[in-house]
Amino acid sequence: MSQSIRAAIIGATGYGGAELIRLLQAHPLVQITSVISTSNAGAPLAEHFPHLQEIVVDILDVLDVDLIAGKADVVFLATPAGVSAGLSPQLIEAGLKVIDISGDLRLKSASDYEKWYKKPAASEEALARSIYGLSEVFGDEVKGSDLIANPGCYPTATLLGLIPAVEAGWIDPSTIIIDAKSGVSGAGRGLGLGAHYSEVNENLSAYKINKHQHIPEIEQALSRIAGKPVVTTFTTHLVPMTRGIMATMYATLTGEHTAEAFIEKYQQYYEGRKFVRIRPLGKYPSTKEVMGSNYCDIGFAVDERTGRVTIVSVIDNVVKGAAGQAIQNLNIMQGWDETTGLLFAPVYP
Amino acid sequence: MSQSIRAAIIGATGYGGAELIRLLQAHPLVQITSVISTSNAGAPLAEHFPHLQEIVVDILDVLDVDLIAGKADVVFLATPAGVSAGLSPQLIEAGLKVIDISGDLRLKSASDYEKWYKKPAASEEALARSIYGLSEVFGDEVKGSDLIANPGCYPTATLLGLIPAVEAGWIDPSTIIIDAKSGVSGAGRGLGLGAHYSEVNENLSAYKINKHQHIPEIEQALSRIAGKPVVTTFTTHLVPMTRGIMATMYATLTGEHTAEAFIEKYQQYYEGRKFVRIRPLGKYPSTKEVMGSNYCDIGFAVDERTGRVTIVSVIDNVVKGAAGQAIQNLNIMQGWDETTGLLFAPVYP
Amino acid sequence: MSQSIRAAIIGATGYGGAELIRLLQAHPLVQITSVISTSNAGAPLAEHFPHLQEIVVDILDVLDVDLIAGKADVVFLATPAGVSAGLSPQLIEAGLKVIDISGDLRLKSASDYEKWYKKPAASEEALARSIYGLSEVFGDEVKGSDLIANPGCYPTATLLGLIPAVEAGWIDPSTIIIDAKSGVSGAGRGLGLGAHYSEVNENLSAYKINKHQHIPEIEQALSRIAGKPVVTTFTTHLVPMTRGIMATMYATLTGEHTAEAFIEKYQQYYEGRKFVRIRPLGKYPSTKEVMGSNYCDIGFAVDERTGRVTIVSVIDNVVKGAAGQAIQNLNIMQGWDETTGLLFAPVYP
Amino acid sequence: MSQSIRAAIIGATGYGGAELIRLLQAHPLVQITSVISTSNAGAPLAEHFPHLQEIVVDILDVLDVDLIAGKADVVFLATPAGVSAGLSPQLIEAGLKVIDISGDLRLKSASDYEKWYKKPAASEEALARSIYGLSEVFGDEVKGSDLIANPGCYPTATLLGLIPAVEAGWIDPSTIIIDAKSGVSGAGRGLGLGAHYSEVNENLSAYKINKHQHIPEIEQALSRIAGKPVVTTFTTHLVPMTRGIMATMYATLTGEHTAEAFIEKYQQYYEGRKFVRIRPLGKYPSTKEVMGSNYCDIGFAVDERTGRVTIVSVIDNVVKGAAGQAIQNLNIMQGWDETTGLLFAPVYP
Repeated sequence: MSQSIRAAIIGATGYGGAELIRLLQAHPLVQITSVISTSNAGAPLAEHFPHLQEIVVDILDVLDVDLIAGKADVVFLATPAGVSAGLSPQLIEAGLKVIDISGDLRLKSASDYEKWYKKPAASEEALARSIYGLSEVFGDEVKGSDLIANPGCYPTATLLGLIPAVEAGWIDPSTIIIDAKSGVSGAGRGLGLGAHYSEVNENLSAYKINKHQHIPEIEQALSRIAGKPVVTTFTTHLVPMTRGIMATMYATLTGEHTAEAFIEKYQQYYEGRKFVRIRPLGKYPSTKEVMGSNYCDIGFAVDERTGRVTIVSVIDNVVKGAAGQAIQNLNIMQGWDETTGLLFAPVYP
Repeated sequence: MSQSIRAAIIGATGYGGAELIRLLQAHPLVQITSVISTSNAGAPLAEHFPHLQEIVVDILDVLDVDLIAGKADVVFLATPAGVSAGLSPQLIEAGLKVIDISGDLRLKSASDYEKWYKKPAASEEALARSIYGLSEVFGDEVKGSDLIANPGCYPTATLLGLIPAVEAGWIDPSTIIIDAKSGVSGAGRGLGLGAHYSEVNENLSAYKINKHQHIPEIEQALSRIAGKPVVTTFTTHLVPMTRGIMATMYATLTGEHTAEAFIEKYQQYYEGRKFVRIRPLGKYPSTKEVMGSNYCDIGFAVDERTGRVTIVSVIDNVVKGAAGQAIQNLNIMQGWDETTGLLFAPVYP
Repeated sequence: MSQSIRAAIIGATGYGGAELIRLLQAHPLVQITSVISTSNAGAPLAEHFPHLQEIVVDILDVLDVDLIAGKADVVFLATPAGVSAGLSPQLIEAGLKVIDISGDLRLKSASDYEKWYKKPAASEEALARSIYGLSEVFGDEVKGSDLIANPGCYPTATLLGLIPAVEAGWIDPSTIIIDAKSGVSGAGRGLGLGAHYSEVNENLSAYKINKHQHIPEIEQALSRIAGKPVVTTFTTHLVPMTRGIMATMYATLTGEHTAEAFIEKYQQYYEGRKFVRIRPLGKYPSTKEVMGSNYCDIGFAVDERTGRVTIVSVIDNVVKGAAGQAIQNLNIMQGWDETTGLLFAPVYP
Repeated sequence: MSQSIRAAIIGATGYGGAELIRLLQAHPLVQITSVISTSNAGAPLAEHFPHLQEIVVDILDVLDVDLIAGKADVVFLATPAGVSAGLSPQLIEAGLKVIDISGDLRLKSASDYEKWYKKPAASEEALARSIYGLSEVFGDEVKGSDLIANPGCYPTATLLGLIPAVEAGWIDPSTIIIDAKSGVSGAGRGLGLGAHYSEVNENLSAYKINKHQHIPEIEQALSRIAGKPVVTTFTTHLVPMTRGIMATMYATLTGEHTAEAFIEKYQQYYEGRKFVRIRPLGKYPSTKEVMGSNYCDIGFAVDERTGRVTIVSVIDNVVKGAAGQAIQNLNIMQGWDETTGLLFAPVYP
């Protein structure tokens, strides 16, 4: 049997941290040895998350690299933008493996990071060392790495839905339009009018049009696959639900590719990868059908009248879009089956 | 003072009918004289809609053209597809004015109707006689008409958002992609798994991709404005909320038109039309900001990187997308101010 | 025709203020002449509430008693607890009529106020002068007053549901248990984890059990009606919806009173009062059936097995529980029909 | 290691059946060998529940007792009222263990069943043989049984919250009032206006007051514990959320018992039972804090002014209120640890 490892979680009082805890406490090969919060150290975790009473009884640790190095083998960072840039190199230095759920290490270009995130970028060395952990696409690189930049929620849904078509040359990358929609948990646990119940409930809004920091992340990956620069139109919407992301994507076909052909192509591309499920002809996935799980479900429609394909891709933003894929990457790093501890069914209804 | 008229509502036990009643009972120049339901005649309306107890005390009438002709001057049809095709000509024949909220009279081409609705079309005569009542665009034609085909909910949000740009030649019509989202009330009061609470709540789904019956309605109007055939990519999504439609629309610019220029152009186009509100630069409307009201709010983003404009248009599907615009058309037909009885603020939060 | 008056609204950027604006701008006899915000003076109101764009174009005024006295005849206070205690006497002094939506002037006992609100109470004089504006019960006192303490949302639903039975001696006041539920808008627009979407959505919670500041307000009114001290058990719950309050109330019968008898008794008590609607036998009101309106709907069940009555009372907390009843009180103060400007139907669905 | 067993699920296309499948497919000692649907036999399960695509690939079996007996050791019945009454005896006869999630075998009195369920009762023999499987209370009886009547959702939350106090004689059973609230999934997957999204969303309603079929189930258990007949006042409400039940319960204290004392008493009563969690003083559980899990969380408030205790008890109606407790009972029947396969954390947020 594989040997188990010890994990620390930084940012345990946010939603990403809570989900890491929910999933890791059920993982057969991982033991949570430290839950860390800079702002709430010393308090029991369950004081912040009563749903974990008697399940996780840990006291929140302070953030101290030496302390972590003494207790853990791998560290998950579920921290706000700007924290990991400085912290990850120290953790690596201390001999830890690092999986960063924040956006700090995803963009290879420091200037892109600073332009879109409005914060100082991580060091060139850290950016060079980190591996972009889109498990189904770049899993081979994840395997040997000790520093993972876990993909963002929107990019995960988007890229898994687009990459096989771009790689196959079936769509014209310059025509890609991504209309993305997210549940409110994507905004995190920090307070703001944009996540205030009475403002968000029974409301649908568009935000950060052409300005979302996930745009360069998506374009970086698509450009790499396409072998040339790709720019996209990307819109984000806030949907009155807690979990779930849907990316509805449009592109012009380069040839006569039917929806059936897309289905077959994607099934081949993702063969053996359990967390991507391709829907049958004429069926499109809904966000609830992956709720609470690590699945990404994808469906296709081709319109002969317009020569365009419409691709619908859904994930649970907190699982496949954050904590779940982070654990999937840990599994890959450790040489375990990528599904270890993650094979639970969606919660429906 | 203008003379008031008597109104009958057919289909009073559906959501469109209920909203007509809510709005008309507050209209200063209209008296509701008959609420009609084929399936529930003889029962008090409030038995079906307890929220109207003591507000509307009418007993549901049977559907009888002579009876209606004796009690009313204008008839609103809030009936399922297929009813108005046969009924409207009889009502016109009996000397009534008719405003049809269903889709039966919107498509000028009978074969298009039969292809998209899978039902027999209305007579050529009825189709020729009916006026497509997109109030802000075709109001002049509405004025002299006695038979209005009231626009669908999706087409209203979409067309008000696109027509000024198409007319100005600022966007290439062949590049238009419409990503539309609707609350569940759009599905009506008829039961189905697609409107079953536990299936729809906390869920976002795409449906009828490239197959929605509102596609030919949108294309018919755009083609007329563009002066040439326009085909579009149109996707509909079901959002877990009761009311509200958002159309997020994408198109390639034909020149260097900024978002500021779009704002100015649209303000000019809709000058004097109170129910269309153009948002300031960098602001996009959300559906709740028009909830319960007859407003259509529109915002713009232009992306220089891609050369595309993104247009966001929102309405309350039950008001501006159905009952409200129907009454706005009645106002225009009668020569009243189009805002009569409709100038109430959105319900927020 | 009645003469119209000028109104100022203090606290215009909160939900109570916004609802006053929505309702007053449609009131035939009231003109809004000043919208006031201490924290946002100088900005256009629509910047805070985009749904009011082009409907209310006022710039937010500073809070200045002389300024208000020069522009208005009546002032509505939609302010946080503690503001009105000091401000209302100044406004009265300046010759204004005052309708206070906050809880500052509701409790006749200053010590009760300080115990439950944890803030200094208003002056004895102000407390003595103010009239508790439960319109249907204490309307006669409202008539001659210039200082109204507008009832709280929970007390309004609760008292309208209990008072006729207590006054008739049909229930034992010492057995009253009130299980109350509210939508999240009752928590206001101020940020907090308790109104953070992802915490509240798909969640039902109980809060402030036996500690809610509306308890002494309810007991004060019930004691007055009963002619002896009444204490109650009162629990509040937060329901994942924006608007609506339901009070489900339990009490032991003092004799053999059937549900039919309750219905008749309440119909008599509220005869001629349009905003209280009594449901027929075996029917109970739901919150959506009064949404957006000034109605309070009440239903009854009597259980012979236990000798208890169950009374269900619902209101829209923002309308009948705040802004709507405030305007109803203004109507009564002015000698107008109490329904003036308030006879709009609930928004359903 | 314990030996695993084979399970069949009857009623696999309803919500109870789907949840059994979700939980059992992750259970280390159970193998699902047959999913059965009378109405949809022959179709793949995933056609009805797309969220299970590639997770459960079974074809729905017909309902045939011999077939089941050949494939399974235990059968779960997630069937509508009236099915199990006739079917369970046949399954027992065929040598199967039976866990019935429906209400058919819960009431020991056939006449009570017929009065509240309006259907013919099961045979006296079946009623006598069945064990009421409230795991934490009657687990000892479950142990040796082969026919379990799994408790209803409301009774589970209610009884776990009341039984320790009733058994201790701390509350007067004749004063018990239960104000219960449920998410909409409790209504099942069958269509009806009462579960139609636009009717239920943003709405709170009371239903079946004093008439719910769970009343005799609750009273039967309380009477047994109290050693004398207990009648209760029980009200059910429909809350706009999918999962979750809260029972807010009121009773008059028989002596001076503080909230602290209640906490201690309940901790003792449920010692070693992992699925009941007692909240600390002044804290009350919310439904989301048990969402997707098998926990029942309980909190207490004592009001010295009224001499009453308020007890708040929450569960996930589909898990602890149905499928989860059913599996917990299977674990007990098999002599396994009762938590086997059920120790997953709630899904939050």
